[in-house]
Amino acid sequence: MHTRADCLQADRQDPLAPLKQLFDLPPDVIYLDGNSLGVLPKTAAARAAQVIGQEWGNGLIRSWNTAGWFELPARLGDKLGQLIGAGQGQVVVTDTTSLNLFKALAAALRIQQQAAPQRRVIVSERDNFPTDLYMIQGMIDLLQQGYELRLIDDNLPLEQALDDSTAALLLSHVNYRTGAMYDMAAVTAQAHARGALAIWDLAHAAGAVPVDVTGANADFAVGCTYKYLNAGPGAPAYIWVAPRHTDRFWQPLSGWWGHQRPFDMTATYEPAGGIRRYLCGTQPIVSLSLVECGLDVSLAADMNEVRKKSLALGDLFIELTENRCAGHPLTLVTPREHARRGSHVSIRHPHGYAVMQALIARGVIGDYREPEVLRFGLTPLYLGYADVWDAVDVLKDVLDSEVWKQPQFSQRGAVT
Amino acid sequence: MHTRADCLQADRQDPLAPLKQLFDLPPDVIYLDGNSLGVLPKTAAARAAQVIGQEWGNGLIRSWNTAGWFELPARLGDKLGQLIGAGQGQVVVTDTTSLNLFKALAAALRIQQQAAPQRRVIVSERDNFPTDLYMIQGMIDLLQQGYELRLIDDNLPLEQALDDSTAALLLSHVNYRTGAMYDMAAVTAQAHARGALAIWDLAHAAGAVPVDVTGANADFAVGCTYKYLNAGPGAPAYIWVAPRHTDRFWQPLSGWWGHQRPFDMTATYEPAGGIRRYLCGTQPIVSLSLVECGLDVSLAADMNEVRKKSLALGDLFIELTENRCAGHPLTLVTPREHARRGSHVSIRHPHGYAVMQALIARGVIGDYREPEVLRFGLTPLYLGYADVWDAVDVLKDVLDSEVWKQPQFSQRGAVT
Repeated sequence: MHTRADCLQADRQDPLAPLKQLFDLPPDVIYLDGNSLGVLPKTAAARAAQVIGQEWGNGLIRSWNTAGWFELPARLGDKLGQLIGAGQGQVVVTDTTSLNLFKALAAALRIQQQAAPQRRVIVSERDNFPTDLYMIQGMIDLLQQGYELRLIDDNLPLEQALDDSTAALLLSHVNYRTGAMYDMAAVTAQAHARGALAIWDLAHAAGAVPVDVTGANADFAVGCTYKYLNAGPGAPAYIWVAPRHTDRFWQPLSGWWGHQRPFDMTATYEPAGGIRRYLCGTQPIVSLSLVECGLDVSLAADMNEVRKKSLALGDLFIELTENRCAGHPLTLVTPREHARRGSHVSIRHPHGYAVMQALIARGVIGDYREPEVLRFGLTPLYLGYADVWDAVDVLKDVLDSEVWKQPQFSQRGAVT
Repeated sequence: MHTRADCLQADRQDPLAPLKQLFDLPPDVIYLDGNSLGVLPKTAAARAAQVIGQEWGNGLIRSWNTAGWFELPARLGDKLGQLIGAGQGQVVVTDTTSLNLFKALAAALRIQQQAAPQRRVIVSERDNFPTDLYMIQGMIDLLQQGYELRLIDDNLPLEQALDDSTAALLLSHVNYRTGAMYDMAAVTAQAHARGALAIWDLAHAAGAVPVDVTGANADFAVGCTYKYLNAGPGAPAYIWVAPRHTDRFWQPLSGWWGHQRPFDMTATYEPAGGIRRYLCGTQPIVSLSLVECGLDVSLAADMNEVRKKSLALGDLFIELTENRCAGHPLTLVTPREHARRGSHVSIRHPHGYAVMQALIARGVIGDYREPEVLRFGLTPLYLGYADVWDAVDVLKDVLDSEVWKQPQFSQRGAVT
């Protein structure tokens, strides 16, 4: 596509284009940050009004039954499971990604304690999403059982990191910063071959790339719903556990909702059979209910078309940036190769922070990640080819005008 | 008060009566379950519409700054802290009660490990809210460090349960089932005298009875916002840590939001100073925002008036039940003594389950708790004396008509 007209033509032929009408997008914005916080489904406001006015206001406590609150984490889990290759009854939507990761890690370590107690190393990636590493560190510090965290980086490739001491491998399917994607099946097989269990963080993957936890023979997977799944700010996350593991261990965040008979109010914890044992405390029903609005749009889309368009948008973004911003010191961080690319494109620039502030001020909303990385999320459900053209137009202008010399863009705020 | 007219007269003189107008209550219902799920503040619907339409829909990712999402757990914590005697900067609203209890328990155990490593017993109460016990059990099972749970019950009074092996005492300030209230200051002093740390669950206390964690010299406190604080179904919970302990230990659920510099995206966890280190993952912003609507009503009430009215409603309920339902096999479970009573009244009846189903069918909504307990929450912000009169009227009628002989009331559903 060499002209804006080419892009408009591609938009007209895009089978996913009608889905954009299912969202409320702000005017005068090109939103390239759906990988950080997804947009508002049109059904969400009415659903919230119903949950608040009818279910809470009128139904009150009765709504645990009459409005199906008690079944909500499992019912939404079944919908979400379809997007990640999970079977029915294998996923619950609950808590946060960080907490679900803690549950998965605890279960994986316990399984290994029973099978191979000498395995005390948790392998992850230095460039993994920080909260994943922080949760591992918290677990290690809590257990005081000689666990250690080993990080893959430029000096330690995955194949060297895995050995007979590895209990679990915890990776993000798509890297939050670079957009690089692992081959989940191949890496899981590699972990299994070395006796390690594989835990996958799908936060930057589910809803954006085809995911098949069952086909990949993964052990555990967690993820959030508020990025590509458009569930709303901080909406509850999810956890999937391979059926072969589900009933083998209680996860330690053993609250009432994961009990086999919670309303017997017994003093002794007894885990529910299946994935419900991964529930813990009472969930935020309003935010949880809105998860369904976003999921329903994703379920209406053909995931193969989503992937095809995501890659096409990424190719276009890379090509236009390289052609039209040539001469500027931009370095592509994201792999070009389709099989290794998720659904966002990251580009490094020495004044990345100022460039992103200037883009946002012009209505092109991406985000900035240390160090110097401009990150652009490409969300096929509501983004078109002409949007990419226009965004690169603004990027070119921002770069040409050397915005980093202007203090309003280069001075950092507390939160970026 | 011997007649309904007396009750109406008391309602006219009630200084808290105008607060009822700040809530949307369903018609034809007397709601005696505000201790399980509070009612809907009139401001909540508009606030949700704003958060969804403006903050999420239009502001999108920018709202982390522009709508103050990043500050929300601490800002709401400061409001909530006023209701429990906490200082500013000592409370965050986040996660669930179960999870906050896990954090507090982990911190308490770690403090003891450093000070008195032989202390490996966690004391709680057999009749404590089950999820509290389940979380302790999960922690013990996870740590595998020889911890044990010792439960106060009819055979083991508190004074005997506390000894040189006790690491922590974890109690509910007001018992969920019986409505019995502990003297927090006296019991905390008792725990401290035996070298134990005191963790309080305020779920059935905050907003209903005066709470002063600082004055009681407590160590940790947690609680939920969706009962007496009217924050909405499953709305995020809170945690308070005594300032003398806050910076001594990282709690193990160490997610990004508790990091000192979360946006540096470093690979190593470094806890934020102060109570923010008790934050973990991304919070459900819609549900979290609604917490403020309920808190604002509670903050508008004089807590001494709330307590006075709560006790008066309780006295009235007990007196009317005993007088008007005399002859029925009702046993008062809740202490009569004001100093030992929270804000709900529990009465045992051999056919408690059927009686409660029949009451609910008649619009008198309380709840049932094993074994055989009818539980009636008395919420001074929106309940009046005539409501209590009318509720006892219906109770009398239900008992007189022997509803337990009718299968539609006596057959149990999956969720009670």
